Amino acid sequence: MTTADNNAVAKPLARYAPFRRAGDLVFFAGIIAVNPDTGRVIESYADLPEEMRAPAGETGEISVDSQDGPMAAQAWYVMESLRRTVATAGGTLEDVINVTQYFTNLRDFPVYNRVRAEFFATPPASTCVQVVGLLPTTAARLEVQATAYIPLRDV
Amino acid sequence: MTTADNNAVAKPLARYAPFRRAGDLVFFAGIIAVNPDTGRVIESYADLPEEMRAPAGETGEISVDSQDGPMAAQAWYVMESLRRTVATAGGTLEDVINVTQYFTNLRDFPVYNRVRAEFFATPPASTCVQVVGLLPTTAARLEVQATAYIPLRDV
Amino acid sequence: MTTADNNAVAKPLARYAPFRRAGDLVFFAGIIAVNPDTGRVIESYADLPEEMRAPAGETGEISVDSQDGPMAAQAWYVMESLRRTVATAGGTLEDVINVTQYFTNLRDFPVYNRVRAEFFATPPASTCVQVVGLLPTTAARLEVQATAYIPLRDV
Amino acid sequence: MTTADNNAVAKPLARYAPFRRAGDLVFFAGIIAVNPDTGRVIESYADLPEEMRAPAGETGEISVDSQDGPMAAQAWYVMESLRRTVATAGGTLEDVINVTQYFTNLRDFPVYNRVRAEFFATPPASTCVQVVGLLPTTAARLEVQATAYIPLRDV
Amino acid sequence: MTTADNNAVAKPLARYAPFRRAGDLVFFAGIIAVNPDTGRVIESYADLPEEMRAPAGETGEISVDSQDGPMAAQAWYVMESLRRTVATAGGTLEDVINVTQYFTNLRDFPVYNRVRAEFFATPPASTCVQVVGLLPTTAARLEVQATAYIPLRDV
Amino acid sequence: MTTADNNAVAKPLARYAPFRRAGDLVFFAGIIAVNPDTGRVIESYADLPEEMRAPAGETGEISVDSQDGPMAAQAWYVMESLRRTVATAGGTLEDVINVTQYFTNLRDFPVYNRVRAEFFATPPASTCVQVVGLLPTTAARLEVQATAYIPLRDV
Amino acid sequence: MTTADNNAVAKPLARYAPFRRAGDLVFFAGIIAVNPDTGRVIESYADLPEEMRAPAGETGEISVDSQDGPMAAQAWYVMESLRRTVATAGGTLEDVINVTQYFTNLRDFPVYNRVRAEFFATPPASTCVQVVGLLPTTAARLEVQATAYIPLRDV
Amino acid sequence: MTTADNNAVAKPLARYAPFRRAGDLVFFAGIIAVNPDTGRVIESYADLPEEMRAPAGETGEISVDSQDGPMAAQAWYVMESLRRTVATAGGTLEDVINVTQYFTNLRDFPVYNRVRAEFFATPPASTCVQVVGLLPTTAARLEVQATAYIPLRDV
Amino acid sequence: MTTADNNAVAKPLARYAPFRRAGDLVFFAGIIAVNPDTGRVIESYADLPEEMRAPAGETGEISVDSQDGPMAAQAWYVMESLRRTVATAGGTLEDVINVTQYFTNLRDFPVYNRVRAEFFATPPASTCVQVVGLLPTTAARLEVQATAYIPLRDV
Amino acid sequence: MTTADNNAVAKPLARYAPFRRAGDLVFFAGIIAVNPDTGRVIESYADLPEEMRAPAGETGEISVDSQDGPMAAQAWYVMESLRRTVATAGGTLEDVINVTQYFTNLRDFPVYNRVRAEFFATPPASTCVQVVGLLPTTAARLEVQATAYIPLRDV
Amino acid sequence: MTTADNNAVAKPLARYAPFRRAGDLVFFAGIIAVNPDTGRVIESYADLPEEMRAPAGETGEISVDSQDGPMAAQAWYVMESLRRTVATAGGTLEDVINVTQYFTNLRDFPVYNRVRAEFFATPPASTCVQVVGLLPTTAARLEVQATAYIPLRDV
Amino acid sequence: MTTADNNAVAKPLARYAPFRRAGDLVFFAGIIAVNPDTGRVIESYADLPEEMRAPAGETGEISVDSQDGPMAAQAWYVMESLRRTVATAGGTLEDVINVTQYFTNLRDFPVYNRVRAEFFATPPASTCVQVVGLLPTTAARLEVQATAYIPLRDV
Repeated sequence: MTTADNNAVAKPLARYAPFRRAGDLVFFAGIIAVNPDTGRVIESYADLPEEMRAPAGETGEISVDSQDGPMAAQAWYVMESLRRTVATAGGTLEDVINVTQYFTNLRDFPVYNRVRAEFFATPPASTCVQVVGLLPTTAARLEVQATAYIPLRDV
Repeated sequence: MTTADNNAVAKPLARYAPFRRAGDLVFFAGIIAVNPDTGRVIESYADLPEEMRAPAGETGEISVDSQDGPMAAQAWYVMESLRRTVATAGGTLEDVINVTQYFTNLRDFPVYNRVRAEFFATPPASTCVQVVGLLPTTAARLEVQATAYIPLRDV
Repeated sequence: MTTADNNAVAKPLARYAPFRRAGDLVFFAGIIAVNPDTGRVIESYADLPEEMRAPAGETGEISVDSQDGPMAAQAWYVMESLRRTVATAGGTLEDVINVTQYFTNLRDFPVYNRVRAEFFATPPASTCVQVVGLLPTTAARLEVQATAYIPLRDV
Repeated sequence: MTTADNNAVAKPLARYAPFRRAGDLVFFAGIIAVNPDTGRVIESYADLPEEMRAPAGETGEISVDSQDGPMAAQAWYVMESLRRTVATAGGTLEDVINVTQYFTNLRDFPVYNRVRAEFFATPPASTCVQVVGLLPTTAARLEVQATAYIPLRDV
Repeated sequence: MTTADNNAVAKPLARYAPFRRAGDLVFFAGIIAVNPDTGRVIESYADLPEEMRAPAGETGEISVDSQDGPMAAQAWYVMESLRRTVATAGGTLEDVINVTQYFTNLRDFPVYNRVRAEFFATPPASTCVQVVGLLPTTAARLEVQATAYIPLRDV
Repeated sequence: MTTADNNAVAKPLARYAPFRRAGDLVFFAGIIAVNPDTGRVIESYADLPEEMRAPAGETGEISVDSQDGPMAAQAWYVMESLRRTVATAGGTLEDVINVTQYFTNLRDFPVYNRVRAEFFATPPASTCVQVVGLLPTTAARLEVQATAYIPLRDV
Repeated sequence: MTTADNNAVAKPLARYAPFRRAGDLVFFAGIIAVNPDTGRVIESYADLPEEMRAPAGETGEISVDSQDGPMAAQAWYVMESLRRTVATAGGTLEDVINVTQYFTNLRDFPVYNRVRAEFFATPPASTCVQVVGLLPTTAARLEVQATAYIPLRDV
Repeated sequence: MTTADNNAVAKPLARYAPFRRAGDLVFFAGIIAVNPDTGRVIESYADLPEEMRAPAGETGEISVDSQDGPMAAQAWYVMESLRRTVATAGGTLEDVINVTQYFTNLRDFPVYNRVRAEFFATPPASTCVQVVGLLPTTAARLEVQATAYIPLRDV
Repeated sequence: MTTADNNAVAKPLARYAPFRRAGDLVFFAGIIAVNPDTGRVIESYADLPEEMRAPAGETGEISVDSQDGPMAAQAWYVMESLRRTVATAGGTLEDVINVTQYFTNLRDFPVYNRVRAEFFATPPASTCVQVVGLLPTTAARLEVQATAYIPLRDV
Repeated sequence: MTTADNNAVAKPLARYAPFRRAGDLVFFAGIIAVNPDTGRVIESYADLPEEMRAPAGETGEISVDSQDGPMAAQAWYVMESLRRTVATAGGTLEDVINVTQYFTNLRDFPVYNRVRAEFFATPPASTCVQVVGLLPTTAARLEVQATAYIPLRDV
Repeated sequence: MTTADNNAVAKPLARYAPFRRAGDLVFFAGIIAVNPDTGRVIESYADLPEEMRAPAGETGEISVDSQDGPMAAQAWYVMESLRRTVATAGGTLEDVINVTQYFTNLRDFPVYNRVRAEFFATPPASTCVQVVGLLPTTAARLEVQATAYIPLRDV
Repeated sequence: MTTADNNAVAKPLARYAPFRRAGDLVFFAGIIAVNPDTGRVIESYADLPEEMRAPAGETGEISVDSQDGPMAAQAWYVMESLRRTVATAGGTLEDVINVTQYFTNLRDFPVYNRVRAEFFATPPASTCVQVVGLLPTTAARLEVQATAYIPLRDV
């Protein structure tokens, strides 16, 4: 698990690598929407930077945003973090070939799917399952584990 | 997640690739037993083509088939779909080296194991976990995520 | 899933390979703390060999050991088994680049993390999720699925 | 409770009036998305007429449609039925001044809200609560109870 | 909420009006089957006056009456109380134009429906939902909230 | 649903009217204790302005205030908001003739009842039910839906 | 368990006898309302032949029929099947001396009791218990196990 | 199901025979501890006649009697009723050859077993299972279904 | 309830007869898979004698045997015990005319059905229900209650 | 546990002392609101003597009293009983130095706290926890365990 | 918490004193029925020494002993351990003046009460509550916390 | 219950004494980790003063600290508060002779035990139980109730 740091590579939630290279393949640690400075999970649009909220789907209607917001905000945070971490590994999101997505409620999938479509023009192979819980706390609703193909000659 | 289409390559449940190649490795999206035409999950032997039912384990005893049937039918459907999708990628089931299997009830494992043995002479590395739920609906009891080693020179 | 055999390579819980090679990559079946001779899951320090107990964290205080013991013992057993299985594949734990860890209760994570730190100087990319259950019985609390990069030229 | 009949005024689920006038006010029985001919609850886009599906939000991605579909389809069916029933009472949706919405899962609210916005230019006063269940079966996820102000002199 | 007093107008369960007039409309507080003298909820046919039991559906078969009895008795008590309270407001049950019915178990609906049919020749608009609980205690299974149209010139 | 804004008319939680007039009757959207600026639900006395806390029932004993506080504070917030919104519609709380109160736990009723008594000299007709949940989040414990009789000639 | 076949003797759900004779006594396998051709459990009046529905209690009111229908239809189906199977054994329902009835919800008992009264002029000794589940699926709500006294000399 | 009437033969809870003869065998309807006059289930020693309480196990210690009392009293009531009903059929408890006992909590078995030993010198064949519920209400904890062998020549 | 003793007639779990004769009929106490010497419930293949395991279905694959094993082993133990007990009563399994089977999980039915088929060439009338629990402990998953027709002249 | 007898020293619920002296300290058995004559738990104001009800907090509003009443009445009963039992031990409530309070729902704490304040001018050291249940039945919501300092020279 | 060692003073489950003296008072750590050598909780009569079983209540009937046994055995073990530990502190059970008993199921109280009566001629003040769990594992059903008055001049 | 104030004696959560002296014994009110100024429960290391975090066990790994942190921080806070309160009573932690610890999850015990060992060189007699809940909110995971022996001549 790595936090989704929007300014830099994801910082691991515990002592392990944010990614590891295996020849031309890069395996990424699972990414969760945690603010690396505070250790707090992103829980709503309010936890996103101002300019990110509307693209993430904020409507300004409290009843709507309270329901879709947690997943929309976490999805945006995680995708943005994945983007930066892949860049650190020398690639782009187009190089991601496989993603396993763990949800705590698959009812959130349509919201996640809308956000993901903003990041992936050519989507990778994908698997989604609903698990019981994620680290660090029950506020975490999404963890994304990715694999990328970034040939060494291209880095 | 991809539907298990028995006539062709699996059709994704959402907008993403049924598989992606990374050099000699091929990563497959998770496969679920969904009829791609109707979007309905396979729920019993009756959802299988006539000739597939006996090999999948149908006994004709309603009390038995009602208990083992859902997993047996989904397992057959998923394996058959995996077989075709791997073929589309240029390989055979023998090239599958790793499978992660998500169940909604591990009590179904023995039935799944019997069906899988029909498809794999040399079984791949395997992991089985029981999750809370799968897409698209609670009728889905099994998702299989596979990785294959299909050297490009062989395709 | 493979049992964690401390004297040899892990023995699969069902009919499949403990690991499969794909070029320079090796995919391991999920490892669970099962004694391959008896088929019983490791449930406490008492199931570990005498000399392994203290390093695994046994304190001798019953109330403490009864709570931390099941995870500590399973973690030690699984790590040791992973170490031996990787060796069989021609590598060392340093070659492990990715681990997915399935817990039945993430409250056990700190205990697992302490044990894992005993085995990995350079930790691999890591993902942790809480699932509903694992094979073979509800006593299993941990399954570890690993991928290693062991170039064929090095074996 | 009334069924949401798309061709005519809603037909009550039991023996009572679909609406009753009290001077200039009209009180409507609660409307549920039930097909009056079959007595079956609308459960997905597939239960809507072909041309209604896209406006109701169908994406063609099974994973998305299976999650959002039940509420989207029921919402569209109920709104359309309310529209026709209000017409029978001599008014239009603009005359609806108050709606109480009963959900079986408020997580569905954003989807409902999108559909309702297609019908109401000027939205009425609104109340939403999550209840345990609705008639006729657990498949029903939404019941809408409306009051309209349709002065007799205007009818 | 008002108790269902069979001799007089319903007595509120707390300090508020049993009904309030708004021009030609009369809004009634929710009515529950509580004996105003003892504060106890009606729980079976035995809580009804002798002559009311058979019309309420008592069969004399204990197994039947124990299952249908609580709802049948509460339904009769509430309808009778509504009848008297409406009379106090200057109207009859024919003037009731809208009823919202809260059940703690919708499985009781058919029994309620049979009793209601004894009171209403021309039934009002109706809404039924299953809630978690009602006042004053968990023995309460039904609350009926009514609106009547009783023009002032008719009183 | 509308937020309970203490400085002005309630602001809707979604896109709809805070109230709608139907001749001499005014229907109010359900009011919930949400701070319109932050979108956060009132959860304790600490969320009330200093001078409102003691009248709302704060005792300064943490164990008492932690139990009664959430409902006491929400009740005060909602009543105050109803008062202002009715004023905007041209009336006073004396004009409210009907209130439906949705609780997430009826055990909170006595606290609510004490607060309501501070606002209503002549209480309206009343109905209380316990529902599963309210918008926007599970922190919301109370929603009040009101109807007032404010003859147009009086406005 | 035997299916309730309305045209012939009940067909067993698995490989065993629909009844066995022991001298003058005949023991019947438990009967469940399963259509022997499709293997589907009877779930509503719609699963009964047209002419059977009204006698089984159908009212035409969807809300009522959805609640009472499943038990009413299953009860009718099972009784009819018992009648035919007893006939095959050489007797009539008057020869049935003992019945054990397994329900998945005893709230359904009054409905069952009404239907049974249509078949038994002289009722046998009876026992009713609520169990967790029945074969073949959770849709089954009733199983009836009967013993009859049909002296061989009378056959 | 029959009530356990201590003065006479058990009275059925619904319209059916308390027992039926089949040659030399007598099948009894299930017996529950219900007072036939009031329809109330026996719930404690206080529901037994004074002289029955001590033999049924009453200790006079409230904490003990509140836990063991319900089963002890129901067991005594049911056994006594079975004794009388068997007598009506022309036999004695020694003629009972088979009993099936349904409990709502098998933790009560030791108490039941003590009481039964008071009635049976030579115990019949016995089966005990824990079911979900019994008629007429959830207060019923025990139902006993018996078969006796009472040759007609002995009556 | 009787233990399933493989060397002799079943030993009752409490003080009552393992079977009782009524003319030509023999009623057997319910049989559970309990080792009469230790009082422990059979829980896996390991509790069966070596030579019984393979016929009972053991595969040697831990993941399969851990799921099917408990029921397979209990079923074999119970059938074998029933066979011996019937022999003690002077008959064979062919004389068994009726069996009632209590499961704690009907998902186990197919496994039970396979084992039973090994013992019964001509199967008796059969009834299966899922109950909450069995004696002596929650490890018991199956209880079989049988009736046999063994004419006295044949013994 | 002792009953709270308002006329005398508390009577134990089982065979043990209502209090025991240890030098200058007196340890009291836990006190529960049970009427020692009937063994019934106090459940509402109606179980208190007429003159005690208003001081205990009865309002005469059924909805309020049904929620606060059980705790208010039990608290008053227990405090009064503690007062008398302490007196029997030679002291007054001022001598009580420590109380442990067990609740079945801490939501009841504010009501308890109001009642306790009527009895203690100088409150003792206090601990409150929510447990699963109390003797003798689930109707008991409060148990108070006290220690007093009553020097022997003062008695 | 201390283990109940039958040969010596109880051994603490963690690092703390089995008892501490405060002048003439002795406070004992909570005692649980754990075998200090194995760390295993006593779970049945079989865990008691042979000669202790009958006095603890063993009947030899498996169905009875499986239900009452765990509490009976733990109660005997704990009482015996308390007796020895009190002796170590210089007193006898007659010096115990106060006991707080924590159960995980108060249904076990009558069994505990019978065993305790074997140890205490003059019972101390007593409090019983049902908690969620005890150390070291869920097999522990009873913890007894005692205080004794053992004047120093008597030691 | 008292808050754990790190600068002074614990402040009671309600109106009662933080401790009371009884001769040479001092009884302390239960202590919970609540910040007395804000009334908020300590929930993580972040709620501790900077310098306290490392000794309380903070690792800086978010996944570890999120799991162990709440208990570690509450334990440290409570121990520190107990130390100060005992000092106010004239003693030191060495004078504490008995502690009863209430947890909401005994899985947290090992963490608590580590922290407690930092404060107690000579540990007091100890009892640990898992309760349902503590005051003031569900965030509280630990309450410690202590007794100390502080002879008056020493103060």
